[in-house]
Amino acid sequence: MNSFGTLFRVHIYGESHGSGVGVLIDGIPAGIKLCIDDFIVDLSKRKSGKVGTTPRKEADMPNLISGVFNGFTTGAPINIFFENSNTDSKVYSDFKSHPRPGHADFAATQKYSGFNDIRGGGHFSGRLTLGLVAAGVVAKKILSESSFNTEIETVGTLYKNEFEEKLESYLIETGSSGDSLGGTISLTIKNLPIGLGEPFFGSVESVLASMIFSIPGVKGLEFGAGFKGCELLGSQFNDNFINSDGKTESNNNGGINGGITNGNDLLLRIAVKPTSSIFKTQNTFNFKESSVLPLKINGRHDVAFLLRVPIVLENAAAIALADLYLQHKKQF
Amino acid sequence: MNSFGTLFRVHIYGESHGSGVGVLIDGIPAGIKLCIDDFIVDLSKRKSGKVGTTPRKEADMPNLISGVFNGFTTGAPINIFFENSNTDSKVYSDFKSHPRPGHADFAATQKYSGFNDIRGGGHFSGRLTLGLVAAGVVAKKILSESSFNTEIETVGTLYKNEFEEKLESYLIETGSSGDSLGGTISLTIKNLPIGLGEPFFGSVESVLASMIFSIPGVKGLEFGAGFKGCELLGSQFNDNFINSDGKTESNNNGGINGGITNGNDLLLRIAVKPTSSIFKTQNTFNFKESSVLPLKINGRHDVAFLLRVPIVLENAAAIALADLYLQHKKQF
Amino acid sequence: MNSFGTLFRVHIYGESHGSGVGVLIDGIPAGIKLCIDDFIVDLSKRKSGKVGTTPRKEADMPNLISGVFNGFTTGAPINIFFENSNTDSKVYSDFKSHPRPGHADFAATQKYSGFNDIRGGGHFSGRLTLGLVAAGVVAKKILSESSFNTEIETVGTLYKNEFEEKLESYLIETGSSGDSLGGTISLTIKNLPIGLGEPFFGSVESVLASMIFSIPGVKGLEFGAGFKGCELLGSQFNDNFINSDGKTESNNNGGINGGITNGNDLLLRIAVKPTSSIFKTQNTFNFKESSVLPLKINGRHDVAFLLRVPIVLENAAAIALADLYLQHKKQF
Amino acid sequence: MNSFGTLFRVHIYGESHGSGVGVLIDGIPAGIKLCIDDFIVDLSKRKSGKVGTTPRKEADMPNLISGVFNGFTTGAPINIFFENSNTDSKVYSDFKSHPRPGHADFAATQKYSGFNDIRGGGHFSGRLTLGLVAAGVVAKKILSESSFNTEIETVGTLYKNEFEEKLESYLIETGSSGDSLGGTISLTIKNLPIGLGEPFFGSVESVLASMIFSIPGVKGLEFGAGFKGCELLGSQFNDNFINSDGKTESNNNGGINGGITNGNDLLLRIAVKPTSSIFKTQNTFNFKESSVLPLKINGRHDVAFLLRVPIVLENAAAIALADLYLQHKKQF
Repeated sequence: MNSFGTLFRVHIYGESHGSGVGVLIDGIPAGIKLCIDDFIVDLSKRKSGKVGTTPRKEADMPNLISGVFNGFTTGAPINIFFENSNTDSKVYSDFKSHPRPGHADFAATQKYSGFNDIRGGGHFSGRLTLGLVAAGVVAKKILSESSFNTEIETVGTLYKNEFEEKLESYLIETGSSGDSLGGTISLTIKNLPIGLGEPFFGSVESVLASMIFSIPGVKGLEFGAGFKGCELLGSQFNDNFINSDGKTESNNNGGINGGITNGNDLLLRIAVKPTSSIFKTQNTFNFKESSVLPLKINGRHDVAFLLRVPIVLENAAAIALADLYLQHKKQF
Repeated sequence: MNSFGTLFRVHIYGESHGSGVGVLIDGIPAGIKLCIDDFIVDLSKRKSGKVGTTPRKEADMPNLISGVFNGFTTGAPINIFFENSNTDSKVYSDFKSHPRPGHADFAATQKYSGFNDIRGGGHFSGRLTLGLVAAGVVAKKILSESSFNTEIETVGTLYKNEFEEKLESYLIETGSSGDSLGGTISLTIKNLPIGLGEPFFGSVESVLASMIFSIPGVKGLEFGAGFKGCELLGSQFNDNFINSDGKTESNNNGGINGGITNGNDLLLRIAVKPTSSIFKTQNTFNFKESSVLPLKINGRHDVAFLLRVPIVLENAAAIALADLYLQHKKQF
Repeated sequence: MNSFGTLFRVHIYGESHGSGVGVLIDGIPAGIKLCIDDFIVDLSKRKSGKVGTTPRKEADMPNLISGVFNGFTTGAPINIFFENSNTDSKVYSDFKSHPRPGHADFAATQKYSGFNDIRGGGHFSGRLTLGLVAAGVVAKKILSESSFNTEIETVGTLYKNEFEEKLESYLIETGSSGDSLGGTISLTIKNLPIGLGEPFFGSVESVLASMIFSIPGVKGLEFGAGFKGCELLGSQFNDNFINSDGKTESNNNGGINGGITNGNDLLLRIAVKPTSSIFKTQNTFNFKESSVLPLKINGRHDVAFLLRVPIVLENAAAIALADLYLQHKKQF
Repeated sequence: MNSFGTLFRVHIYGESHGSGVGVLIDGIPAGIKLCIDDFIVDLSKRKSGKVGTTPRKEADMPNLISGVFNGFTTGAPINIFFENSNTDSKVYSDFKSHPRPGHADFAATQKYSGFNDIRGGGHFSGRLTLGLVAAGVVAKKILSESSFNTEIETVGTLYKNEFEEKLESYLIETGSSGDSLGGTISLTIKNLPIGLGEPFFGSVESVLASMIFSIPGVKGLEFGAGFKGCELLGSQFNDNFINSDGKTESNNNGGINGGITNGNDLLLRIAVKPTSSIFKTQNTFNFKESSVLPLKINGRHDVAFLLRVPIVLENAAAIALADLYLQHKKQF
């Protein structure tokens, strides 16, 4: 099920080492100004190149296959395609019999009876998030009043106030030792309309969570005060209203009450696991040899792929909220 | 949108102080043995009555309105209805103009232009989770091979190893002071089939998260090692396979790789906020008087409603997994 | 899958001889005036009692279980329940082994491995259309600008211009001979907004057809000039525009171009098969005896159930169009 | 909403005169043998070239962008893309102000506030049915036991028994006079499993109708005896069972009882309107000039596009039935 959304619907496709990856977006209102340039900034934020990211280089140039005419959306589905060029599949050949720990190799081979494309992770590749970033660009045009801000809070055991001084060397050393890092990222969204979301299954938390846990490697999500907030007393946690706009004194609920946005900043934080691909040898089961054997992964990978996740998080959240926004607009 | 699921579909309805609440379940295979008695154990786990829970008493007797014949499911939708009896709506009259902090009063009144039923929270009431518990009973019959185990990990600042000694007095004291508590709950599911879930939008994490964040008061969710796991190195986090069943040495991924169950225990943990309704006076905005005024909430409420959440969490998760299970079975 | 709709969603449930039947409607905007009385007129149009209809009498009194408060919709799901009272199940006991021609007995027994409730057709009963009629009442409140008009065009071989003179005796004679009749019904909808529907899968024709073919016994559907129109030349069939409102000279397209309403009257016509239950003995296969044997159906049934279908058609169409209308409103 | 299906899901995209058209198919089981050659036969049946079809020539070569690896489906979405080459957009420039009768020009321009791509009908073009044909090829691989047979029953006023003698000259003469023709097509499907479909909204008729009415130009659909069957008595219409396989004597229900396949041949028939584009001058409203003015359509078009519809009908039906088939397989 590679589809998300009720009115603003996003369908992703493609493989890491096939002809390319892309996204088909449906339900976009007609008349939104849109051109290739609109995608460049966000796509470049996702790119590798910085310390701690993979040496695989891709142009990541979006091709607008459909749905845009004379510089505006037409109301028809927009297909955005990204060609693969810099692929190198030889090293992946054996992962069906010697599955990489932390990766989908084992589970996917079981699920698809071995027919899955395993080259570069195939359809499981983080490269598929290109489609999320692209669709998020369109989503943010729908949510034009709102602003999105992401921040990397921690990398491994390092807090953000230590980044300037220590992050680069931390990444280089971890990479040199053949290991990898995870971390946490926060997202703050300002100026969302009051009233997005529904009680229960359509709660803002549910819809955002459903989308955000589709980003590879996300293993935790909390809203507002989150896990820490559970230790507070009700009288400390509750956010008292202080004016007629619904502004609250504190924001432990993260801008959401009863599943519905209350007009305060929407606050969330995610946990991203360390990159599963590491150069260090790992002892893991080899199905061909029927025994635990050392596995040495070659190829190219990020020391900490979370460094490239902020724009994915931001735009994935925008997709989910744009869908809620369009549903909200239909109210009488 | 009060509906969840693709093949196993659950629709909830009702209000806290209306005629009752219920759940309509569709997509249930025919031929599953099912009677009223099957629901009693799980429903009683959700009941109030213990220290720290509300004095409101409801029979919570399920009425099987449709879909069951001669003691077996027929393949037609099952409607399960719970009558309300013990309602007391007088105290709720003013919450549209003086909204309770932490509750949906303000956001819902805005969203529904004041037409929402605010008595007892109306459709936003935790009482709607009766339907989740009931549907989960059916879901667990579909997942008959798997076992579910929940545990309250923390209440407020108390850890589970201190519960026996201190929990009761902690709850009583907090309640006496007019305040409330939250906490965390873990869920372990054993013996799920390998291969449930999909990459990206249909990932096990996404589907479970979408369901679990629809439980009122849940503000955080993590799988496997979760937030703590982000501090580990990749070589520490990765779960090495140790046999041909896909059994892993550690289980930091919580039984899920690439969005798909890998046959190891599925592990997750949620954060539940403290009960929003407290007896302590709160200074919050009064829309009729256009100023911040003290609000004193009377009525009946749990000191720590999280004490009643474990069975809701368990059965909500079962609903989501039963849906994935039925989708999985259709694979060639 | 007993659910229909994207934003205005309708879920039906119940059995002919169980506790009752009903409909759960979700996605209704808040603030629509609604009370029991609003349903009475439409429900009475569906009632039996006239010549040619079944002697089974049911009060068909709607119970508003949820979603309405102080006389207005709240935005929460509305559950409308109709109790069964006048049931008589003894005669149905043997239809799993000796299935009635034209009925679902055989197909359903196969599909549900014999666990289906066969009493009165169980969940397959035409009685389930009570829910469609009720939901249509709400739908027509959403489409308050539009008007709906149905007409029975033919009954058996009789045309509507002969009804006054011959219909009653035709029905009585056919009934007396133990036989039954079908016919055709037209529906005209005036004043729909321009722009409902989508190209292809979401075309007005697709959405209406999907709904209308869920009415038991409908075996044909045509829009505008329909089957007859295929014999025309393009120059005869095409509907030329004659003013700036999009008014057309002819209306062979039935008010729809490219799947989208064009502001002219929406015209459609359905074919309803003769009542499957007849008193005449039928030679049909008996599975217990493994041979073709005479089957004599007792019980109560309509000579021509199509006489009760017009309000079902009208309200079913309204449900589908209300859903398209709410989707349309979200456009920028 | 350019998506169809619950488990076998099809999303179409593209424009007549843009870069191309295509289809994204999701939910395909892994392990189905599939290559370019599999598409050629069906695609060639849809091609123009014969008498009565448009002179526009397109290679219609499918590009398998994703989801196929080593000659087999992988379980990931399959994107099939068809490039446009033979486009000629100049003649379409003015149809927003002088809309063509029978086409979507007026309705779409209203719906999309004039932002729709009108060149060659844009996203409304019959060229989008390429995606349906391609997806149907995959669907028929899933329904490998069943056989599909379509037949053109009538063209204009000509019956199929007259085709050999008169069809070619009829088409040439009508084309020469600047006019166009419609007709009817039947579809027979043998060897479907018993038990596909659901009562009411998921009935085989509903699901097929929803899909078939998305084929441009279809204005009528009937199952089994259809409209003619309404004139029969119940005792004539009913299909008596004659053996333990559920085989019936007659097949007026078209292989469907209560919305569910009963194992007999599935029979349906559609009405296709005459091609809307004709060379004859038409007097229709010009919005720029605010008056009825003669419109002369140039360009290339089919005299009777229904000649190219049989394979579209067949494969569209296969898509809908493959979806029901996969849902059916999940039953316990």
